[in-house]
Amino acid sequence: MSEAAPFPRLGVIGGMGPLATADFLVKLIQATPAASDQEHMPVIVHNVPQVPDRSTAFLAGSDAPWPHLLDGLRTLEAAGCAAIAIPCNTAHVWHSRLASETTVPVLHIGDRAVAALLRQCPDARRVAVLATAATLKACIYHDQLAASGIEAMSPDEAMQANYVSAGIAAVKSGRIDDARALLTQASDALIAQGADALLMACTEIPVALAGVLLPRPAIDPTDALARGCVDWWLAARNESAGREAPSANLEAQL
Amino acid sequence: MSEAAPFPRLGVIGGMGPLATADFLVKLIQATPAASDQEHMPVIVHNVPQVPDRSTAFLAGSDAPWPHLLDGLRTLEAAGCAAIAIPCNTAHVWHSRLASETTVPVLHIGDRAVAALLRQCPDARRVAVLATAATLKACIYHDQLAASGIEAMSPDEAMQANYVSAGIAAVKSGRIDDARALLTQASDALIAQGADALLMACTEIPVALAGVLLPRPAIDPTDALARGCVDWWLAARNESAGREAPSANLEAQL
Repeated sequence: MSEAAPFPRLGVIGGMGPLATADFLVKLIQATPAASDQEHMPVIVHNVPQVPDRSTAFLAGSDAPWPHLLDGLRTLEAAGCAAIAIPCNTAHVWHSRLASETTVPVLHIGDRAVAALLRQCPDARRVAVLATAATLKACIYHDQLAASGIEAMSPDEAMQANYVSAGIAAVKSGRIDDARALLTQASDALIAQGADALLMACTEIPVALAGVLLPRPAIDPTDALARGCVDWWLAARNESAGREAPSANLEAQL
Repeated sequence: MSEAAPFPRLGVIGGMGPLATADFLVKLIQATPAASDQEHMPVIVHNVPQVPDRSTAFLAGSDAPWPHLLDGLRTLEAAGCAAIAIPCNTAHVWHSRLASETTVPVLHIGDRAVAALLRQCPDARRVAVLATAATLKACIYHDQLAASGIEAMSPDEAMQANYVSAGIAAVKSGRIDDARALLTQASDALIAQGADALLMACTEIPVALAGVLLPRPAIDPTDALARGCVDWWLAARNESAGREAPSANLEAQL
């Protein structure tokens, strides 16, 4: 293994949903400075979508996703991964428990997304969180935004059910045009209610809203997580190169 | 594992290049009949792009990619995969050797692509093969097309180097617009020389030519491989469901 794969590998607990995982991989590739295949990040993807719906489980007080998430973590550890990313916002309900099960770092999508928001929209005071009902109820974003002096806005119950959750479900069943229409309407309504910016805080949402021009900035946590992974990897690769062969250049590592 | 993941899993030896692997995953998802995350195929992706360039190695008589491909196979076997796909045409130089190393089926991209060509273009007599120099030299497509009474056309050496190979390299370095221009010119030239259809026989090429309207049908081996994987999976899932729980329906398997 060490001869064939000298670079630190990222592990991805994916499949939640599968199209969101593919979107994350594309954003990871686009964020990596590379002029050839070999300069890209090695990634093992556990794209096993049989994880029970995270939002439904959390709202029902069920722990059903947990053994599936742990199976993903163990498979990725066995494949030699040196850090873990989870391109699913709602699954971060189980983030701290997963992180406590392993010695490798588990990046947090919310930390990266809020940092991106503060960087890209330093003057935002009211931010709409488009997410699953569980991400809203678990306050994955709300607490962190409040700590930064930002008011988190959520859709009302009817808009959440009929536009946001319905739009997320449409992506999962491959109806991207339907999803785009539903989520654009939800975004427009929240902007009309005074949102300075949007957080697309379910990984299905940026898939649906790709290419849509909204009148306010829309932060993409999938992209923020991908950029966080690239930062981790560039640092880990340099550290690994320095440790294994002090005088080696990139080519000698391949 | 068996409780958390009852469905047969596909293993993907990817990273050749990474964007082509992501393109394959999207095509796999689009080809799968599914209305929710849980109805999608479980896939483990070994997206480790440090495999030395397959075309350069084959043309130089080097076996350098082999330990990397074998590492991918072993990692995917350890993760419980029940079939293997390799979304890289040139890597199929090592296909039969990989297949001989494992008891799980290793799908062949060329078999699926030629079957798709015969189905979609039953009257084609001259087919242009857009591919790496190694895929052409190893006759991955030429022999099979000849056996079906089809003449395989290759670009001349200058067009291969300056348009096809250059276009493939452009995708690998993220310059998709450059790649599209180069590969469209190569396609137009081969059509002008009498090609009835095109085989986009390097997984970078359909990434670059996505959305381009060509005056002749262009067969996408990445898509053909994805559809072959879905056929494998639907059959394996049904067989697995029948074996493990004769009376179980889909929900009971989740």
